[in-house]
Amino acid sequence: MPSSKRTAILLISCPDQPGIVSAVSSFIGNHNGNIVYLDQHVDSRAGLFFMRVEWETENLALSDDEFLETFNNEIAEDLKLNWQIHYSDRVPRTAIFVTKDAHCLYDLLSRHESGELKLEIPLIIGNHNSLEDVAQRFGIPFFLFQITKENKKDQEEAEIALLKEHNVDTIILARYMQILSDNFVQHFPNQIINIHHSFLPAFAGAKPYHQAYERGVKLIGATSHYVTADLDEGPIIAQDVIRVSHRESLSDFIRHGRDLEKIVLSRGVWAHSQRKVLVLQNKTVVFS
Amino acid sequence: MPSSKRTAILLISCPDQPGIVSAVSSFIGNHNGNIVYLDQHVDSRAGLFFMRVEWETENLALSDDEFLETFNNEIAEDLKLNWQIHYSDRVPRTAIFVTKDAHCLYDLLSRHESGELKLEIPLIIGNHNSLEDVAQRFGIPFFLFQITKENKKDQEEAEIALLKEHNVDTIILARYMQILSDNFVQHFPNQIINIHHSFLPAFAGAKPYHQAYERGVKLIGATSHYVTADLDEGPIIAQDVIRVSHRESLSDFIRHGRDLEKIVLSRGVWAHSQRKVLVLQNKTVVFS
Amino acid sequence: MPSSKRTAILLISCPDQPGIVSAVSSFIGNHNGNIVYLDQHVDSRAGLFFMRVEWETENLALSDDEFLETFNNEIAEDLKLNWQIHYSDRVPRTAIFVTKDAHCLYDLLSRHESGELKLEIPLIIGNHNSLEDVAQRFGIPFFLFQITKENKKDQEEAEIALLKEHNVDTIILARYMQILSDNFVQHFPNQIINIHHSFLPAFAGAKPYHQAYERGVKLIGATSHYVTADLDEGPIIAQDVIRVSHRESLSDFIRHGRDLEKIVLSRGVWAHSQRKVLVLQNKTVVFS
Amino acid sequence: MPSSKRTAILLISCPDQPGIVSAVSSFIGNHNGNIVYLDQHVDSRAGLFFMRVEWETENLALSDDEFLETFNNEIAEDLKLNWQIHYSDRVPRTAIFVTKDAHCLYDLLSRHESGELKLEIPLIIGNHNSLEDVAQRFGIPFFLFQITKENKKDQEEAEIALLKEHNVDTIILARYMQILSDNFVQHFPNQIINIHHSFLPAFAGAKPYHQAYERGVKLIGATSHYVTADLDEGPIIAQDVIRVSHRESLSDFIRHGRDLEKIVLSRGVWAHSQRKVLVLQNKTVVFS
Repeated sequence: MPSSKRTAILLISCPDQPGIVSAVSSFIGNHNGNIVYLDQHVDSRAGLFFMRVEWETENLALSDDEFLETFNNEIAEDLKLNWQIHYSDRVPRTAIFVTKDAHCLYDLLSRHESGELKLEIPLIIGNHNSLEDVAQRFGIPFFLFQITKENKKDQEEAEIALLKEHNVDTIILARYMQILSDNFVQHFPNQIINIHHSFLPAFAGAKPYHQAYERGVKLIGATSHYVTADLDEGPIIAQDVIRVSHRESLSDFIRHGRDLEKIVLSRGVWAHSQRKVLVLQNKTVVFS
Repeated sequence: MPSSKRTAILLISCPDQPGIVSAVSSFIGNHNGNIVYLDQHVDSRAGLFFMRVEWETENLALSDDEFLETFNNEIAEDLKLNWQIHYSDRVPRTAIFVTKDAHCLYDLLSRHESGELKLEIPLIIGNHNSLEDVAQRFGIPFFLFQITKENKKDQEEAEIALLKEHNVDTIILARYMQILSDNFVQHFPNQIINIHHSFLPAFAGAKPYHQAYERGVKLIGATSHYVTADLDEGPIIAQDVIRVSHRESLSDFIRHGRDLEKIVLSRGVWAHSQRKVLVLQNKTVVFS
Repeated sequence: MPSSKRTAILLISCPDQPGIVSAVSSFIGNHNGNIVYLDQHVDSRAGLFFMRVEWETENLALSDDEFLETFNNEIAEDLKLNWQIHYSDRVPRTAIFVTKDAHCLYDLLSRHESGELKLEIPLIIGNHNSLEDVAQRFGIPFFLFQITKENKKDQEEAEIALLKEHNVDTIILARYMQILSDNFVQHFPNQIINIHHSFLPAFAGAKPYHQAYERGVKLIGATSHYVTADLDEGPIIAQDVIRVSHRESLSDFIRHGRDLEKIVLSRGVWAHSQRKVLVLQNKTVVFS
Repeated sequence: MPSSKRTAILLISCPDQPGIVSAVSSFIGNHNGNIVYLDQHVDSRAGLFFMRVEWETENLALSDDEFLETFNNEIAEDLKLNWQIHYSDRVPRTAIFVTKDAHCLYDLLSRHESGELKLEIPLIIGNHNSLEDVAQRFGIPFFLFQITKENKKDQEEAEIALLKEHNVDTIILARYMQILSDNFVQHFPNQIINIHHSFLPAFAGAKPYHQAYERGVKLIGATSHYVTADLDEGPIIAQDVIRVSHRESLSDFIRHGRDLEKIVLSRGVWAHSQRKVLVLQNKTVVFS
């Protein structure tokens, strides 16, 4: 059962070495933090160590600021940790980018409304206005940025300004049918989550269901991943597939695919929002 | 429940047109064939019709030879059918090709022994002798054809001669780690079944588990397909996947993969042996 | 690709006998119906035949009324068929019953709005008013029927009257946490679709996720089924599962379960709305 | 990658309390044990802690016997741990019990021969002699114990004596169609692994595929579990399912089921053999 109290979440990655779990958990315990989650992973092939630890801050003997300084001085520098800390009362400020397909947007907004997704969603951005109605029904401001080859640079600059103004740190591409420029992506490293409608690396690029249908595969898939400069090549967070046969037409592929897309996207977003994802190079550790 | 009586199996593919089911099933019925299975498929996108019909021959008013001639004259020519007929008492004469990994071989031989796979297996061919013992345990002759760049052409010719001598019509590549030449493949069109240890078209070629591990996918797969001149590009018969996470090492990928490989290979072989697979262009219809 | 023209859909079940496919498809063809779908199934264990055939009515030489009479006289009586006919322009008039959980309701309404679910939804009925807002956002009238032990009989009578008044023929229980009386169910035989949050027949009854958690299963499931007088015992339309482990808490079971519930319910509703489900005794044939 | 060096594996369960990971890992580290695996699990609902830690013994400053005493005195008593220790060079001595179906037996023996399953298999016991041939092919002694209502008590006593004589600690019921008495089971608590051919708790007892077919489920499953006095009620280790439809006959259920059975049984046996399973009350923690 998730804690209903305020918690701190520490994510660590570093070269594997003995004693990290012990040092970190002792540090938290010694300052009266009540650990409610601890998981670690060793990638012995790459020689890397990953850890996620979460504790209730109620009785912690350190303020948030004191923690930063003390943990850094007493633990992180010695052990050469890459680390980040999050707090359960500071949830990702998230923009959803959409085009015309509503299924992922409805799914995300429904999960947000029920409290399943711990996010703030200050705005929705569309490159078409088809889904403005949906945004309005949920009371979320909608901004239209139509993109052409000519105006793309300017429009993206305006989008970035708007996002910064709203303190957005996370972007969800909910079937957003427009490629973001490298410049845009670099403003949000490992903070943009896309859903690609294939089992990557199969069928990257355009029209993956058409590609899958032509190839005659017996399973179709979807992949949620962080966006990097290389299209459809970013670190994978979640994937799933469903079985198809010769009986399924292309329109059946697309229909079943919508179910995959929304489920797999939301799994990626949920893990991200719970601070359960660590990226190293081009792979993820997704803690449970 | 499958019929225990002798049956005939007719496989048809042709441009879609009305009346085929009716014409074919009436023809069989009029000659006192008791239809025990009938399934058809229309690929409306490609404008193609596929059909599989099976009937008990016990009371059929036509001999096998008479059927060939009469069906051709009265039905097939008019409707411009591509068709093939099989009989339940003439099962595929099958050679299994192996290298060093035993799991698919044991799986196939165990299924064969239990009667699940209706095949005759007159011989096993290896490019190593590692699995000669396994062949001997099941009383099946084993032939060693070591392949080098220099002797490949000659060895394949000798293999083809041996296979023809044994009236082999079907070849199973049970983790056979050697690429067959185009010439070899052309002797057995849509009769060579391979297992590739990835979810094709992802990770074609060498070391797919290594590729999958490096890419950080969250599912790994296996694919059984007919072999064509294009490596790992032939018509797919069966595919399956299992879930992996950062917790699985490369050796776990390989271990789980072995389970996928043997199950997916045997599904492909079973469908082929039951005459349930129709190939058109590069796709399959696999009747249930 | 589904036909965009008006179609008729004929569903047939009867004792297995030769010649049905031929007789039915010839009848349709002879009256200039263009068949766009035909599938049949033989349950040889039970000796039963099932068939679904769909044709474009554009050039049909018979009016809808003439079809009823002619087909009955020329085909159905002779072959002793149980049959029903539907038309693509008369979609199920559907009421959705809800309590407090919104995920299935949002999912259904989103699919309805996009045109994926061909339904008319004249009203939503709740035994709580929690989801009245959701209904309003989609512009669908919401009716509150609070149920107590004392008023249940009267409230159900009022519901039935309301449903009849709106010509409702199909009811979806979208996580409706109230057992319908036998009397209510008998008004809508095989027309009420429920989602049960377990892999039936495991964990029937109350709190299936709690039961699953206590039992320590490694997969959890959901089942959509037609409602009969026996609780959780009706004919199953669709089922699915996802993997869990000791790492998942009960709240994770419930969270993952919501995804299963909405997907599996919508699959059942989709098949029903496309007239793809035939019920015989307590089992379904679900055509693809 | 698993270590190829000799390792020790410590399994711990106890009431949850802070500091266990730290105390145990420090103890091992302080005695020069190189930890190659550490995973823990907290069941916060039940207030229980579980841990598995594995280290190379090469440079350990303690002999096996010294470890037992020192760990007990310095760690286990204080923290009130339930614990067991295993060594990679002392693999489970395993008896396989069979009746007539060969698929699970072949699968286990094939995995054993390849080194995937780290087991010693001193004997196979059958209540029929159908599979004596298979045992002989793999060079494993086969013992026949025919069981009747009259002789069951005596035969089981003889079996127990034989098993003790061979120092057997683990028993695999590989489709063994005979219920073991409570007395027999009590000699091997949480050491007997059974495969049940359904998705438990659905379809416990006899003929689960028949039950599943009659109920009209859309998925069939298999479950490997430890045997307890309550039939089909023991702690579940692994489960899996595959999709079926109305198209699959009962014989298809049985055929697909065989694949499930052998895969799910071997997963349970593998986890057991790797000392990855902890049982508490009627549930398992299966470490990855």
